[in-house]
Amino acid sequence: MSFNTFGHLFRVTTWGESHGPALGATVDGCPPGVEIEAGALQHWLDKRKPGQNKFTTQRQEPDAVRILSGTFDGKSTGTPIQLMIENTDQRSKDYGEIAKSFRPGHADLTYHQKYGLRDYRGGGRSSARETAARVAAGGVARAVLAQLVPGLKITGYMVQVGPHQIDRARFDATQIEQNPFWCPDATAAADWAVYLDDLRKNHNSVGAVIEVVASGVPAGLGAPLYAKLDSDLAAAMMSINAVKAVEIGEGMAAAALTGVENADEIRMGANGPEFLSNHAGGILGGISTGQDVVVRFAVKPTSSILTPRRTITTGGDEVELITKGRHDPCVGIRAVPVGEAMMACVILDHLLMDRGQTGGVRGEIG
Amino acid sequence: MSFNTFGHLFRVTTWGESHGPALGATVDGCPPGVEIEAGALQHWLDKRKPGQNKFTTQRQEPDAVRILSGTFDGKSTGTPIQLMIENTDQRSKDYGEIAKSFRPGHADLTYHQKYGLRDYRGGGRSSARETAARVAAGGVARAVLAQLVPGLKITGYMVQVGPHQIDRARFDATQIEQNPFWCPDATAAADWAVYLDDLRKNHNSVGAVIEVVASGVPAGLGAPLYAKLDSDLAAAMMSINAVKAVEIGEGMAAAALTGVENADEIRMGANGPEFLSNHAGGILGGISTGQDVVVRFAVKPTSSILTPRRTITTGGDEVELITKGRHDPCVGIRAVPVGEAMMACVILDHLLMDRGQTGGVRGEIG
Amino acid sequence: MSFNTFGHLFRVTTWGESHGPALGATVDGCPPGVEIEAGALQHWLDKRKPGQNKFTTQRQEPDAVRILSGTFDGKSTGTPIQLMIENTDQRSKDYGEIAKSFRPGHADLTYHQKYGLRDYRGGGRSSARETAARVAAGGVARAVLAQLVPGLKITGYMVQVGPHQIDRARFDATQIEQNPFWCPDATAAADWAVYLDDLRKNHNSVGAVIEVVASGVPAGLGAPLYAKLDSDLAAAMMSINAVKAVEIGEGMAAAALTGVENADEIRMGANGPEFLSNHAGGILGGISTGQDVVVRFAVKPTSSILTPRRTITTGGDEVELITKGRHDPCVGIRAVPVGEAMMACVILDHLLMDRGQTGGVRGEIG
Amino acid sequence: MSFNTFGHLFRVTTWGESHGPALGATVDGCPPGVEIEAGALQHWLDKRKPGQNKFTTQRQEPDAVRILSGTFDGKSTGTPIQLMIENTDQRSKDYGEIAKSFRPGHADLTYHQKYGLRDYRGGGRSSARETAARVAAGGVARAVLAQLVPGLKITGYMVQVGPHQIDRARFDATQIEQNPFWCPDATAAADWAVYLDDLRKNHNSVGAVIEVVASGVPAGLGAPLYAKLDSDLAAAMMSINAVKAVEIGEGMAAAALTGVENADEIRMGANGPEFLSNHAGGILGGISTGQDVVVRFAVKPTSSILTPRRTITTGGDEVELITKGRHDPCVGIRAVPVGEAMMACVILDHLLMDRGQTGGVRGEIG
Repeated sequence: MSFNTFGHLFRVTTWGESHGPALGATVDGCPPGVEIEAGALQHWLDKRKPGQNKFTTQRQEPDAVRILSGTFDGKSTGTPIQLMIENTDQRSKDYGEIAKSFRPGHADLTYHQKYGLRDYRGGGRSSARETAARVAAGGVARAVLAQLVPGLKITGYMVQVGPHQIDRARFDATQIEQNPFWCPDATAAADWAVYLDDLRKNHNSVGAVIEVVASGVPAGLGAPLYAKLDSDLAAAMMSINAVKAVEIGEGMAAAALTGVENADEIRMGANGPEFLSNHAGGILGGISTGQDVVVRFAVKPTSSILTPRRTITTGGDEVELITKGRHDPCVGIRAVPVGEAMMACVILDHLLMDRGQTGGVRGEIG
Repeated sequence: MSFNTFGHLFRVTTWGESHGPALGATVDGCPPGVEIEAGALQHWLDKRKPGQNKFTTQRQEPDAVRILSGTFDGKSTGTPIQLMIENTDQRSKDYGEIAKSFRPGHADLTYHQKYGLRDYRGGGRSSARETAARVAAGGVARAVLAQLVPGLKITGYMVQVGPHQIDRARFDATQIEQNPFWCPDATAAADWAVYLDDLRKNHNSVGAVIEVVASGVPAGLGAPLYAKLDSDLAAAMMSINAVKAVEIGEGMAAAALTGVENADEIRMGANGPEFLSNHAGGILGGISTGQDVVVRFAVKPTSSILTPRRTITTGGDEVELITKGRHDPCVGIRAVPVGEAMMACVILDHLLMDRGQTGGVRGEIG
Repeated sequence: MSFNTFGHLFRVTTWGESHGPALGATVDGCPPGVEIEAGALQHWLDKRKPGQNKFTTQRQEPDAVRILSGTFDGKSTGTPIQLMIENTDQRSKDYGEIAKSFRPGHADLTYHQKYGLRDYRGGGRSSARETAARVAAGGVARAVLAQLVPGLKITGYMVQVGPHQIDRARFDATQIEQNPFWCPDATAAADWAVYLDDLRKNHNSVGAVIEVVASGVPAGLGAPLYAKLDSDLAAAMMSINAVKAVEIGEGMAAAALTGVENADEIRMGANGPEFLSNHAGGILGGISTGQDVVVRFAVKPTSSILTPRRTITTGGDEVELITKGRHDPCVGIRAVPVGEAMMACVILDHLLMDRGQTGGVRGEIG
Repeated sequence: MSFNTFGHLFRVTTWGESHGPALGATVDGCPPGVEIEAGALQHWLDKRKPGQNKFTTQRQEPDAVRILSGTFDGKSTGTPIQLMIENTDQRSKDYGEIAKSFRPGHADLTYHQKYGLRDYRGGGRSSARETAARVAAGGVARAVLAQLVPGLKITGYMVQVGPHQIDRARFDATQIEQNPFWCPDATAAADWAVYLDDLRKNHNSVGAVIEVVASGVPAGLGAPLYAKLDSDLAAAMMSINAVKAVEIGEGMAAAALTGVENADEIRMGANGPEFLSNHAGGILGGISTGQDVVVRFAVKPTSSILTPRRTITTGGDEVELITKGRHDPCVGIRAVPVGEAMMACVILDHLLMDRGQTGGVRGEIG
């Protein structure tokens, strides 16, 4: 119900603004007895951290996470876990222009209209900095999943930057952490570097598509209709800043398929049912099939650019605005660990809900 | 939290199976004093009703809705509205094969695994019949919106069937109700008829893309992060049977745009801010801008086809299965009024939430 | 969040008015595979049914419950269970006076102020008839509990009518179903009969106190703070019409105890910890101890009485009003099965939530 | 749904343990544009602060609250408000005995059973220190209420300590802040001081009853059944540590009243309906009447006492335990500002929900 919470049993409420003293996440409903260490959470935050290469914002933030509650002797107690990240690099500057103008593509205008006021410093609540809190919460979810479903693995990567897609034939998972784009195709990564460099010099930015895959997800997570696993994944990914579309499995391409093509045929394997394809993206009728859960989402281009755009001021005057600052030429890059974090949270939440309703018992076959 | 509920303040819980005695929706949180007549709801149900042409299932259901509670003298009282639709055409048949086999692309296997049993008659809970309840609830939402936001209009239509898209240059809203496809492009509609006829004769089916546009939506609905208007729309559309992707505004295409292209520039109009384009689909930072809210979703091809597909039985035997019955060759067609209904419910819900938090006051400009 | 829903994972939404066509409950989140038969639910409804003796309203309602969804071959499928009870004895009468006057002690005035209109026939939504839906839902909860926690038992009874309390020294559980008051003290029951007869003849009514005890509740249900077991029980009981107070264990009397008196000392028993007393009513820190969960609630006197009371009309005129009709002289009597139903729903809900968060594992002792 | 959250639209999630680095509250759904200053919140926290006289724990905590998010230029922005209170006086001590024994009357045993581990330092999550976070959140609610309903006033006070009640004939609101007991009866306060001194010297403690009254509450807040104003108040008060009973209006005493006595008769006043009595405690049918909302709750005696009590250890050994430390002889005293805070939060939440559903319009009379 809440405006800033997601999840049903494993619930995450994020708080904080770009230039306030701190931001964080209140994580409620965490199973007890799970090892939760700040160091392990930091590992995921470091992946998202800005300023690591020239393709992301040059803002310098250690993004050091502190655990303020909910653990004891390094283990979760079952009570709320408070994760806090202090803002340190709030570069002093003159916000005069941004305070009074609405940047096109930003939430400036809508916040102003809805709330009557807004924290304009660095985008306030609408800043991508908020996603640090998601990554921290996702780290908690991962720690729980590691204990409850040891084989489960979540991997995110970029499959498209601007019009340039990866070549699936060159997909190599070991490449993902070898380039600044979380790109599984080394050739594409090299091309993207040139492309983005050029864009940045031209004071422009571009969108991207991220794919997140969860393998080892047990069959039976989700529910028939409104708490469908895909419905919750769609909400979770769409809640990330700048995301404009979410696909499960074939996604939009499913529209062009015939029923004969789209049917994921089933055979008996050594350990139960096996599918001969995965057009469904691991979800049928809102419930996981045991195959890889495959989600893609599109991130729009960074709205803050150095090219002047027409807009208005709070006073109603028409102006041209350049958004100065330390912006990501492709904000999609840093969305990769964020998408992974949301996947982890949603899967854990559904695992707990399923265990609550069914006790985790599965219908037998054969 | 609930498994079969959507909405925050305006909450809809649907219930019922394809071949049980009835199905329906429990609508809670409806504003009082709104004219709610069964006849008006029936108008929307008739749009979704099966058996109206050869492109939808030939099951004959009057889909007559009854209002069992929550109104008095034809007006909503503010208490829960129970909408019931009795199932009448539950054709008696032998379910032996379907009872024991898992149809590829269906929820049969996942329901079996999660719940250990399933109502296999007509797909049970996973049947598209459930969407009748959504349409009825959407009718209530429309009645409320008509009173609270008189100019608001919601229009759904098909923009793609299989690989065949409409030509936006031929877009004519008056065509939408003139063909069996809710297609705004008369030429495309004619082509689709031939294409679908052919598919049906070949015992095949195909997917589709539906677009739903809400115009006249006030600025300021939504919230920054998890109760974002787009996040809730994504969840709502993805919760419809067979939907595999949801797009807002540019959707997946946003990935290929540059920041310069994607910026919806702003000028002052006679009645406040005006945008020079609508790449954002009417939503910025999770909050409505006042422009058209534009949502698209892809529906996968009907999984029930007369072409044999490989699968397994509950006993673990490998078989080939033909799904007999009265199936839609393109289930996307009947998803159009369902998408409209979900749009109506989500917008009303956010209107009430916004009114709750802010009192509906808007920040001034100029 | 919803206005007419209670529960977290096991969620019940009731709907319906006293004189509409039907009322019922939408039960979501029920575990699958549980035997749910209308006949078994009817057993509990028959306990609450009006017109069974001269101490309850003479309205004749069969209160026959129908299961419209969520079961298959007599077992729950895990999808929403719709329970419907048709209203049959909607005695035709002239509502002129009640339609225009606000009965003191009733919700007439507050509904009018909040909603601007109200279904005045028989109290509409505020009628005690709504509790039939709770009892039906409670029947579902009992069926699930019988399967998950075989030894669990829920017993409700009256401990006070007007100023007359039972004598705990005469407590005999076998008496509870032997008199019209669910009274465990045969002597008190006889006295109450005389007392209530007299009150009724004097056109008056009176309040009561009901106690509901759940034995066999596993330790560990509940949560530290806001989803405390006692907090949810308090909300559940207070949500019953006419209830004005809820006590857990010692209740209000705890205020007068010293810490030395109130400490429930602990020893080791054959099967784990044993308490030497139960001042806590089976709940410590919001979590069940394994002892009997003991809840009491006070029901105010029936507001509808034949003695004239001063009030106003919708037109603002001052009048004296007699509420004619078939009213309970002590509405508390029929609240006994309702209190039991709420206890069943809350305990099942917490059982599922606990299973979700902790997997049902318990910390070891010794 | 969440375990540590209360409220629907105005939602408060508290976090933190007694001896962790900090505790606090995440407040979501706050209306924008309201002046929220740490200083104003501090005012309420100072009322609850320990160590102010010999009748409360001697722990010294400044309880200084910091606002980490959700405000800008001193005003709420509509985004989550994070309130943090650092723990400073975590007196170093040997927890050996408490770590291994379950204190009778405490949550030690139930936490251990449910979670398998617990933060035993100072009671961890079950410590009354958690209520500091409630008081801070209540301060936010009060600030909003002051703006939305200027005449609304919330006043809490003690009406009973052990067996000693105030004399309502001596009720003097100006006395409440003149004694350490928030007692409106100066004579009773003097008696209580002697009584409590004696108890403390005898290593004992005692319970209490607190009454909280909200005047100026608009008519129409609440909802018929499960989101009844009284149901939410009951849950809110019962969620406070050590509370064992909640009463609305007459409360338990309503059981002994007749319908003739209990009817709050209605006349027309200058500004609308006026009641001639307030047995209902300002709530009819779950909805506020416009009269004073009157809630009472009983707090059990402090469980931590210096008198030895029998218990067991985690190893299953039977021992006698004295709970050393700086404990309140009557923890009810510090519950007064906590009860006020919960009242403020619940009323604001219902105000926002009502505004959402009805727009705040009221049915006319006369």
